Amino acid sequence: MIAQTIPDFIRTLTALSGILEKGAASAQARKIDPLVLTSARLAPDMFPLTKQVQIACDASKLGFARLSGMEAPKFEDTETTFEELQTRITKTIDFLHTVTAESLVGAEDKVISFPAGPERVLKLKGRDFLYQWVMPNLYFHTVTAYNILRHNGVDVGKMDYLKGADLLP
Amino acid sequence: MIAQTIPDFIRTLTALSGILEKGAASAQARKIDPLVLTSARLAPDMFPLTKQVQIACDASKLGFARLSGMEAPKFEDTETTFEELQTRITKTIDFLHTVTAESLVGAEDKVISFPAGPERVLKLKGRDFLYQWVMPNLYFHTVTAYNILRHNGVDVGKMDYLKGADLLP
Repeated sequence: MIAQTIPDFIRTLTALSGILEKGAASAQARKIDPLVLTSARLAPDMFPLTKQVQIACDASKLGFARLSGMEAPKFEDTETTFEELQTRITKTIDFLHTVTAESLVGAEDKVISFPAGPERVLKLKGRDFLYQWVMPNLYFHTVTAYNILRHNGVDVGKMDYLKGADLLP
Repeated sequence: MIAQTIPDFIRTLTALSGILEKGAASAQARKIDPLVLTSARLAPDMFPLTKQVQIACDASKLGFARLSGMEAPKFEDTETTFEELQTRITKTIDFLHTVTAESLVGAEDKVISFPAGPERVLKLKGRDFLYQWVMPNLYFHTVTAYNILRHNGVDVGKMDYLKGADLLP
């Protein structure tokens, strides 16, 4: 059951990549420094776009690393440009492609300990970790990235976010 | 597998209810007309908070109505106040509590046809409908509601959104 959700993460990160592409294109078309968009926030004490993308990637890679026992790629968290954010997404998707169904056997009932902030360690059963932590975090940071760009006049719509569904004819 | 995700919807809608409570409290404390917050948007051509909450509820109720074959409660889409939005969330959660595991047997492979916008009907397999449409829609509108309030100075944090996880001791 857990392995079946990997394509959902890949699809959402791919949609995020497309949304960022629209952001980069919009900056170019409107002659705005792209760093204005990548450093934009919805509130002064909220993370900027760069950090939203970093965390969307980390939720995905660390989530499946913890569930599978595989080692996730390390990132330096130094991205500032759209291109660097795209590279991070690509590397995260590449990692998700390497996570096998075999490595996730029994993961549903495994106890997962993970840091939540600098001083707190939480524990959840594998199934709950995926559905109550990893997945909501992926969506939280993907949608916030979308909202930051949307708020800054980038022409994205909900179908950019829902893109890639396996529609039947 | 599908029935197992009902508590995830209930948890997220309950978190949304808590976020709206903080919005209402913040309006009162700052002496702002609450309707200013419930009608706030992140962009002039985006839906206001009221509509975000309405759609988060509808994604959930219509999603499980279509998967289970049960009839979802009808709402008039006339909410303008925080109290009215809370009532809609409560009624949606009440409906989700009535959806039985039995009614969802076989739902994974059932073909679901559903409207996407006024002129388009899409088709997805039950499993994909849940994971590629219903769930991302729930999160999209919940997180956007959160972001609207956060952008308007309401003191909410990500833990308000992640609240209710089944943490182990």
